[in-house]
Amino acid sequence: RARLRRLVDAPRFQHLVIVVIIINAITLGLETSDALVAGYGTLLHGLDRLALTIFVIELVLRLYAHGGSFFKDPWNCFDTVIIAVALLPTSGSFAVLRALRILRALRLVSMIKSMRRVVSALLTAIPGMASIAALLSLVIYVGGVMATKLYGEISPEYFGDLGRSLFTLFQVMTGEAWSDVARPIMEQQPWAWVFFVGFILITSFTVLNLFIAVGVSAMEH
Amino acid sequence: RARLRRLVDAPRFQHLVIVVIIINAITLGLETSDALVAGYGTLLHGLDRLALTIFVIELVLRLYAHGGSFFKDPWNCFDTVIIAVALLPTSGSFAVLRALRILRALRLVSMIKSMRRVVSALLTAIPGMASIAALLSLVIYVGGVMATKLYGEISPEYFGDLGRSLFTLFQVMTGEAWSDVARPIMEQQPWAWVFFVGFILITSFTVLNLFIAVGVSAMEH
Amino acid sequence: RARLRRLVDAPRFQHLVIVVIIINAITLGLETSDALVAGYGTLLHGLDRLALTIFVIELVLRLYAHGGSFFKDPWNCFDTVIIAVALLPTSGSFAVLRALRILRALRLVSMIKSMRRVVSALLTAIPGMASIAALLSLVIYVGGVMATKLYGEISPEYFGDLGRSLFTLFQVMTGEAWSDVARPIMEQQPWAWVFFVGFILITSFTVLNLFIAVGVSAMEH
Amino acid sequence: RARLRRLVDAPRFQHLVIVVIIINAITLGLETSDALVAGYGTLLHGLDRLALTIFVIELVLRLYAHGGSFFKDPWNCFDTVIIAVALLPTSGSFAVLRALRILRALRLVSMIKSMRRVVSALLTAIPGMASIAALLSLVIYVGGVMATKLYGEISPEYFGDLGRSLFTLFQVMTGEAWSDVARPIMEQQPWAWVFFVGFILITSFTVLNLFIAVGVSAMEH
Ligand code: NA
Ligand code: NA
Repeated sequence: RARLRRLVDAPRFQHLVIVVIIINAITLGLETSDALVAGYGTLLHGLDRLALTIFVIELVLRLYAHGGSFFKDPWNCFDTVIIAVALLPTSGSFAVLRALRILRALRLVSMIKSMRRVVSALLTAIPGMASIAALLSLVIYVGGVMATKLYGEISPEYFGDLGRSLFTLFQVMTGEAWSDVARPIMEQQPWAWVFFVGFILITSFTVLNLFIAVGVSAMEH
Repeated sequence: RARLRRLVDAPRFQHLVIVVIIINAITLGLETSDALVAGYGTLLHGLDRLALTIFVIELVLRLYAHGGSFFKDPWNCFDTVIIAVALLPTSGSFAVLRALRILRALRLVSMIKSMRRVVSALLTAIPGMASIAALLSLVIYVGGVMATKLYGEISPEYFGDLGRSLFTLFQVMTGEAWSDVARPIMEQQPWAWVFFVGFILITSFTVLNLFIAVGVSAMEH
Repeated sequence: RARLRRLVDAPRFQHLVIVVIIINAITLGLETSDALVAGYGTLLHGLDRLALTIFVIELVLRLYAHGGSFFKDPWNCFDTVIIAVALLPTSGSFAVLRALRILRALRLVSMIKSMRRVVSALLTAIPGMASIAALLSLVIYVGGVMATKLYGEISPEYFGDLGRSLFTLFQVMTGEAWSDVARPIMEQQPWAWVFFVGFILITSFTVLNLFIAVGVSAMEH
Repeated sequence: RARLRRLVDAPRFQHLVIVVIIINAITLGLETSDALVAGYGTLLHGLDRLALTIFVIELVLRLYAHGGSFFKDPWNCFDTVIIAVALLPTSGSFAVLRALRILRALRLVSMIKSMRRVVSALLTAIPGMASIAALLSLVIYVGGVMATKLYGEISPEYFGDLGRSLFTLFQVMTGEAWSDVARPIMEQQPWAWVFFVGFILITSFTVLNLFIAVGVSAMEH
């Protein structure tokens, strides 16, 4: 078992897996082309199966080599979930899962150290953001309920039900085409500008503070 | 009275209120759906009334428990205003107030400590922004008067009167569809680009400094 | 003369001028409304003339009181230019100058200390930005000449001549409707994405560094 | 040779080259106007050839003066490439190269010290960005393959093949007209909002960290 662990942790073994991940990412990219699938479909599918087989063998080897401590490393859990998703049946109503196969390419992150460090750093910033993100969600929820009540009848496309309103307010928050949303409503309710300008000012200010929180936490590390 | 204060300040009591706020926020969200109101309208309205009753009782208890010092805490004033708004008549011309009932969900902020701290931190940044925000408002006002004079006749939709101009310049400042505003005007007044490019450069620069002021004040704390 | 200087520099005198500036800014705002001009045009114009007269008297007094050292303070030069613009004839081809009268409201900045300090702080950041701003201008100029050559015939509306190209690239740099510019060109020259994506990446990166330069200089002060 | 090096490194010689670069940049700008080419085409082309001749002579002199160490300075390599591009034949299928002649204006960067320092500072930030940029590219690639599979048939204009998808996702990442992309798809696949909102949140967060990395590295220097 110790010998197996040495094998599994050897740079050569890891480089091999990285190469397989990259080849698999490329073949999955090529598979999006109908022309290429028509010409080389069998080859592409074969390579895909081969890659998946290699990943499963690699996972089993690593699992056996590290034993119970395997799942203590969150990156290993990540790898396991990604590969488990790939093994699910993709026929019928699970067609979406076929599109998720490309998530395997994210295993590059867990295999390459510098990527791993970057993602770890990104994740470190999340707890510091939690309170502000919760506040922002609350503001969007409150705004969504208000907008559905106030503008649901005037602008059913954007504020017809709570789901639409939340999506529209997310869109407004990103500054995307918000005047297309606001101007038609303002023609019927001239005071609607208060809602939109207020919402933009409040969310921008909150998002700014979210960004500053991330920045400050990044500087501390 | 001291006993009442212990009761009111007990974590259990506060958790209960938080749960009521969350349930009320959900029922107010569900109320936006005509289908749900048709089916469960009585239940939803009943829950809403119940929640409001609980909030009023809680407010009275806390007011009695803390006596005159109650309104010294701005969060208590906040709670009082929110609940007072909910008690206003919502019939006839006050229909907008019905939409404001969801503001009660913002009481979550005053009840949960970490949210309270975040909002306090956000508010701390505001005095440092005041001068720059005043400058920005002045720039938008000056730009608005100029644009109404210069482009009011060419582009009445965007610059027909001072109110429209101010709204349009706010829109331009957020970078939203500003070329849709500027290009038709430039076709008749080719030099109009000076106004728009100048306005964007000046306001972006000022907003950037507003953001930096917030960032610097955040780092100091 | 010393007595005059005491008068001119007295807080009361300055508060009076500030009030006049604010009233004048409001009357100029009201003047944008045709309805109000029809009803109260004489009053509004009268107030405007009165304010201008007060400004001229104030300027002459301050000029006399401070003598030759008056123009050493750049804020005084600023005031002088603003008032000189207001005195220019506004008939005929100088109609644009009528719109510039509202610039007088910017005198608020020179009269209120905290505003003055903010603007001074903003101006302090400019020298540190000069090199990056020059680089950015060079990039836009080079991009503009290239785009006019490459896309002038395909997309004359956006890249028909150098002026249009520079404006369009400024627009693309602000992220405004850039896909509306790029997609029709890409339909004829599929490789045009390289130009647009490259331009956006380079200018965003440069603008980011411009912002950081401002931020760093703000933190040093 | 030492004398030649003194000549080549003399401020006067460098100022002369800078003036030639600026004049050349202007003539290339004027050349974009068909009217000016019709009237002064021979003059403009003559000035262009003259400038290019001066650049070639200058390059040869500097190359001879500094000998083998010439190409050790990356700015000299930059100059050489820029001038080599200008010497390539521009007829026929190389018409794009005519548009690249304006790149010579970028030699200003290598000739003016403060510009050189700014660009060097910008380039310094790039290694620190590499890992995050790689992560971002990976996210866009994975998103592109998924979107092509999921939305390629519903929205062939935006997600018809992998190339289009990558371009569209770059557009979405810049926040440009992303609701125009997402809303039509959501009408057929209501859950598509998960993809778009998720993609925007993940890429914004990553780009924010990219910016912070640049900011932190800028503050360290
Ligand atoms: Na837009
Ligand atoms: Na936009």
